[in-house]
Amino acid sequence: MGAKVNANFEALQANYLFAEVNRRVKEYQKAHPEADVIRMGIGDVTRPLAKSVVAAMVKASEEQGQAETFHGYGAEQGYEFLKDALRKYYAGFGVSLENDEIFISDGAKSDCGNILNIFSADNTVLVPDPVYPVYVDTNVMDGRNIVYMPSGEENGFLPMPDEKLEGDIIYLCSPNNPTGAVYNREQLTEWVDFANRHGSVILFDAAYECFVTGDLPHSIYEIPGAKTCAIEICSFSKKAGFTGTRCGYTVVPMDLVREETSLNAMWLRRQCTKFNGTAYIVQRGAEAVFTPEGEKETEENLEYYRGNAKVITDTLDRMGIFYTGGKNSPYIWFKCPKDMDSWEFFRELLEKAHVVGTPGAGFGACGQKFFRLTAFSTRENTIEAMRRLEEMFG
Amino acid sequence: MGAKVNANFEALQANYLFAEVNRRVKEYQKAHPEADVIRMGIGDVTRPLAKSVVAAMVKASEEQGQAETFHGYGAEQGYEFLKDALRKYYAGFGVSLENDEIFISDGAKSDCGNILNIFSADNTVLVPDPVYPVYVDTNVMDGRNIVYMPSGEENGFLPMPDEKLEGDIIYLCSPNNPTGAVYNREQLTEWVDFANRHGSVILFDAAYECFVTGDLPHSIYEIPGAKTCAIEICSFSKKAGFTGTRCGYTVVPMDLVREETSLNAMWLRRQCTKFNGTAYIVQRGAEAVFTPEGEKETEENLEYYRGNAKVITDTLDRMGIFYTGGKNSPYIWFKCPKDMDSWEFFRELLEKAHVVGTPGAGFGACGQKFFRLTAFSTRENTIEAMRRLEEMFG
Repeated sequence: MGAKVNANFEALQANYLFAEVNRRVKEYQKAHPEADVIRMGIGDVTRPLAKSVVAAMVKASEEQGQAETFHGYGAEQGYEFLKDALRKYYAGFGVSLENDEIFISDGAKSDCGNILNIFSADNTVLVPDPVYPVYVDTNVMDGRNIVYMPSGEENGFLPMPDEKLEGDIIYLCSPNNPTGAVYNREQLTEWVDFANRHGSVILFDAAYECFVTGDLPHSIYEIPGAKTCAIEICSFSKKAGFTGTRCGYTVVPMDLVREETSLNAMWLRRQCTKFNGTAYIVQRGAEAVFTPEGEKETEENLEYYRGNAKVITDTLDRMGIFYTGGKNSPYIWFKCPKDMDSWEFFRELLEKAHVVGTPGAGFGACGQKFFRLTAFSTRENTIEAMRRLEEMFG
Repeated sequence: MGAKVNANFEALQANYLFAEVNRRVKEYQKAHPEADVIRMGIGDVTRPLAKSVVAAMVKASEEQGQAETFHGYGAEQGYEFLKDALRKYYAGFGVSLENDEIFISDGAKSDCGNILNIFSADNTVLVPDPVYPVYVDTNVMDGRNIVYMPSGEENGFLPMPDEKLEGDIIYLCSPNNPTGAVYNREQLTEWVDFANRHGSVILFDAAYECFVTGDLPHSIYEIPGAKTCAIEICSFSKKAGFTGTRCGYTVVPMDLVREETSLNAMWLRRQCTKFNGTAYIVQRGAEAVFTPEGEKETEENLEYYRGNAKVITDTLDRMGIFYTGGKNSPYIWFKCPKDMDSWEFFRELLEKAHVVGTPGAGFGACGQKFFRLTAFSTRENTIEAMRRLEEMFG
């Protein structure tokens, strides 16, 4: 007798990647308080919320102060007004969804971890390498078997299906974190066909879809057949600067059935049991993103970040360094100069250029020689960081 | 090959209790659109947020609209300003906590489900019967062995430890949902001693502590020895009307260790991996609850609900019906008149008095003959509902 802990936690790496980066930066700053450190590591935004979003949240806060307009518990899966807005947003990509297929949450990271509740621990999970560490850690916590799909320069960091691979649950992230690489329609079609053929479920992380331009897919549901094999997780964090405001959503199609069980019904049950909905105020803010004014304002912010990304890719182009991302993604993933290892380059860049990025090795073995920068800094800092990079390593 | 679902979900009851209640009420209203139905079922509040809370959220929303005051990702475990306020709140009960022992979240229901991530599926769980269905359902989803502790009139719905009981994880809820019964210091001391003797972990749900008056404990940490055996989960939902604003917190003491593992470190790791913090705006609202003005305003709301509870208990006293709760709790748990079963009484009360409550059977076998009403309605509706109850069954 006595409580037993989840022994799978022992298999987790000791430090969460970004915590380790922060620890090293703090240590350096303590020793060198004069250094003007520019942070281009974590994927946090810097632009404030759009005026329409702020106005909607102010109004909603005031509603909460009056008995006539007060909102208590909402549906765990979110308000219809926000689902309506999202349904119309998806219609813009030619994707037709029902409101009951959309689940509003406090963010993509929560959904990404919690969605695993509906799956057995006895599933083999296929994850790209390099990859957002949360995919791996959340599965390690449940003790699932994890198989990595290596990627690199040879496939543009876009692993493709392989009949030799076993994967009951398949993580795809496009635009990818950390590589910024984006699957095109033909590539995603191969994945959807593979998953339907094998009964796999694709967990499609679309957190960066707002950076996609041209004919590249925003949603996996743009691919025929995806509704019988894919769950899509998305967020307002990057689209509308909600990193500190917290709102995301997950789409589980009605047609997605495994072992004669509706995954939509399972996720609804999970959320109704372990979640109590997202703040009314926040959902009103998210709704305002889709008003004409809100769309214009958020698009201005995205353009600003796209401009930062161009500053970075222009620099790398001049330096002749291989990279992915930056065109349809806020992430730029490049090969470390002078064949350095990524943590070695992290130290050099921090100590010599006072620029913080994220070492590729933190995202998996295939990231060993690569480095991630983000376009979420200010324009001034991005220009200055790139000036220093070119000066040191150009 | 092919994704396998979590087979434990099959063992869940088909409908979540409150969904079933809602379904039946909707059905009745559809057939009888003229009926003036008063809802005293779900534990949702009706009083608007305190003025200070609204003002804090309006200010925080506006901060999010300016680059200089914009807040992106915060720490997963919450802002220090809110932890400081909570630490001082606990000090008022004579409980000394460190900030790192407090984890802010989007609500007690989320924490109550997610905390199980840090425990092995191989634990026996001890739950009172009747009980908040979420304790049971979340453990069923993980396939844990559940043992019920029967309670009833004989022990005032306050089950006590018994050396014959095996419980690695023990749920206690005080003031209790659904019975409103509150453990006193001596009783909680017995539980703490039992847990420390057996290495059990108590999950103490304090969601209704704000209704406690007199010398009854608000927090399990008022009991010596609790920091080596208890996790406490609490919420702003009832205290400050945050049911739709979403903020809660969980305390995991540094001294709580099982199998040589710090549960505080495990919960921190869980939250850092599967959660991304609570909205900045909401945390600022929660902070304002603890300002002198905020305390006064929220206390006024609590007094209003206490007045409703008194209307209910006065009626039951007059009718000579056995009940628990209502004195230090927003819930009143009473024996169904005429020896009726609780779903039978639910139907009678709905059809004859047009009053909605929650059938005790929905909370467990021991609730079969009992019924729960809440004090969260308006004063007018509470008085009218009690008039009808007394008229029909008095």
